[in-house]
Amino acid sequence: MDNMKNFEDNERLNNPKKQNIIKEKLAERGVNLMDIAALTYDLQKPYVPTITIDICLEHVNNVLLKREIQHAILVGIELDVLAEKELLSEPLLSLVKGDHSLFGVDETIAFSIVNVYGSIGLTNFGYVDKLKPGVIGELDGAGKREGRCNTFLDDIVGAIASAAASSIAHRYTV
Amino acid sequence: MDNMKNFEDNERLNNPKKQNIIKEKLAERGVNLMDIAALTYDLQKPYVPTITIDICLEHVNNVLLKREIQHAILVGIELDVLAEKELLSEPLLSLVKGDHSLFGVDETIAFSIVNVYGSIGLTNFGYVDKLKPGVIGELDGAGKREGRCNTFLDDIVGAIASAAASSIAHRYTV
Amino acid sequence: MDNMKNFEDNERLNNPKKQNIIKEKLAERGVNLMDIAALTYDLQKPYVPTITIDICLEHVNNVLLKREIQHAILVGIELDVLAEKELLSEPLLSLVKGDHSLFGVDETIAFSIVNVYGSIGLTNFGYVDKLKPGVIGELDGAGKREGRCNTFLDDIVGAIASAAASSIAHRYTV
Amino acid sequence: MDNMKNFEDNERLNNPKKQNIIKEKLAERGVNLMDIAALTYDLQKPYVPTITIDICLEHVNNVLLKREIQHAILVGIELDVLAEKELLSEPLLSLVKGDHSLFGVDETIAFSIVNVYGSIGLTNFGYVDKLKPGVIGELDGAGKREGRCNTFLDDIVGAIASAAASSIAHRYTV
Repeated sequence: MDNMKNFEDNERLNNPKKQNIIKEKLAERGVNLMDIAALTYDLQKPYVPTITIDICLEHVNNVLLKREIQHAILVGIELDVLAEKELLSEPLLSLVKGDHSLFGVDETIAFSIVNVYGSIGLTNFGYVDKLKPGVIGELDGAGKREGRCNTFLDDIVGAIASAAASSIAHRYTV
Repeated sequence: MDNMKNFEDNERLNNPKKQNIIKEKLAERGVNLMDIAALTYDLQKPYVPTITIDICLEHVNNVLLKREIQHAILVGIELDVLAEKELLSEPLLSLVKGDHSLFGVDETIAFSIVNVYGSIGLTNFGYVDKLKPGVIGELDGAGKREGRCNTFLDDIVGAIASAAASSIAHRYTV
Repeated sequence: MDNMKNFEDNERLNNPKKQNIIKEKLAERGVNLMDIAALTYDLQKPYVPTITIDICLEHVNNVLLKREIQHAILVGIELDVLAEKELLSEPLLSLVKGDHSLFGVDETIAFSIVNVYGSIGLTNFGYVDKLKPGVIGELDGAGKREGRCNTFLDDIVGAIASAAASSIAHRYTV
Repeated sequence: MDNMKNFEDNERLNNPKKQNIIKEKLAERGVNLMDIAALTYDLQKPYVPTITIDICLEHVNNVLLKREIQHAILVGIELDVLAEKELLSEPLLSLVKGDHSLFGVDETIAFSIVNVYGSIGLTNFGYVDKLKPGVIGELDGAGKREGRCNTFLDDIVGAIASAAASSIAHRYTV
């Protein structure tokens, strides 16, 4: 019975059906979950030496189960795609296409992802958002090419990796 | 010289050119700044008995000068309009059209508006978001009609009114 | 095995040992968990007609299991107690004792509690923080008496009730 | 008249009297504003090549004028000092003295400082909080010594430097 209760607790904030849609949307935009797990691995390796890339991938998957996080990802990816198709009106179109450092809404969406795992995740997000390691740098570079917009996506990927790092920190830190 | 410095300080976070675009976008969606000022008036009247609707309108205008707030408003209104035109992809389209209480991104966008004026504004936002007084209730009701979506707009209007109330509180409270 | 995994997932962000300390601290400050559950009940009754006070109490208990929430509660209660004992230095002592509407740190601490359950909880928090129903109003009134300070506590209680309401909304809303 | 209005606008969120108290409190804790300005300089130099350390110092001073930021700093420093004097009750005393990565309230207080300058400041905060350059690393190291606690202070210093960097970004970025 207690196990049943635990099961229900897990379902509360989760939506497994929508998780697959999110994975497909990320794949369509060129994001591999293993690349996100690699960011998480680099973030947590110094603190949890026994961590493996598979554990990181499992936590990335858990992050993508959360309803509020799924919604934030859907909105961010949609705005990037609409900017590529020039279906946003001005002046928003130029703001999103330009990925201006003062735009701010991309960070707002990213913070709402990280926040679900408590305030400690924001430190990791700021770090990867600034240094743009691995796939984040690739997405940022690709987004500068004609016809391509990753303004929200690079922040979203950094936020997922940071949220997974928080999830690991909460589990493995004494 | 000190006045010059003050002028520059004011310009820092403001963008007067984009303020007019924001006002037009709000008007196109049926939102009158005077209706927002009325919400602010009701929020602040108990604390600042000498407040007038004109002072409230002035503070609503100031809120619309802030760059980060302008961007949040542009994104929210755009998503409502795209939902009406059925230009969002699924499952986001259904989420935005349905204005589901667990969607959350509308509140995230609204919080980023209120946050600019400090944490005290969030209390006012929560209050109007729950009670839906005046124009907020009208927008919420209108958004339930066929072909119309105000999922982001009612939260945005509540956030602008709450931000203006914070602005007044900061000025008039000793 | 899956049940084991669920168990571990639940332990991740939780700290059952510290939950009892939190309950004792709240009791010492005159806060009964049943009074918090009553606030949650009133918040969720309109949306979940089958809700009972016992279910609300169970969710209040769950909220108090979360590590980040426990820490926020400990800090807030400590600052109230230190203000009563005049052990805070000036000008902080006067700010905390005065419960000034522009102080802001009490709301900051409360938001960090609500945030753990996603952005939707902030609406409930703003609502109860403004209207001060039930035990919140009692704490607010008691805090104005000589030698007594509830500057953080009334916000903390509102935040716990709102977080529990979010928890229920996530579980019972389709 | 317009200049008068600008002056009033600047006063709204500011409290120049308390700014000096904050500077004294920081100095008592071993923090020199020039050290904070040096962090801001390193953060903004890549984006604003003409920036000088004096401009950075001016923006650090402006950050310390904001009422909500002043209150957050007062609370954080007070908790560090009370921990050193062992005047906090358990288990909070051990949590603050231990500067545990999952404590979280130190980051919560820091975010409330950075937030006043919009979401873009959080990226800089995360970056310096992780890498601990300059005075942040010194404070973090000193806080590990017997009888000394800088759990809140290193985050506060990083938050002030990041807020000043945001302030510069808003002014100098086209």
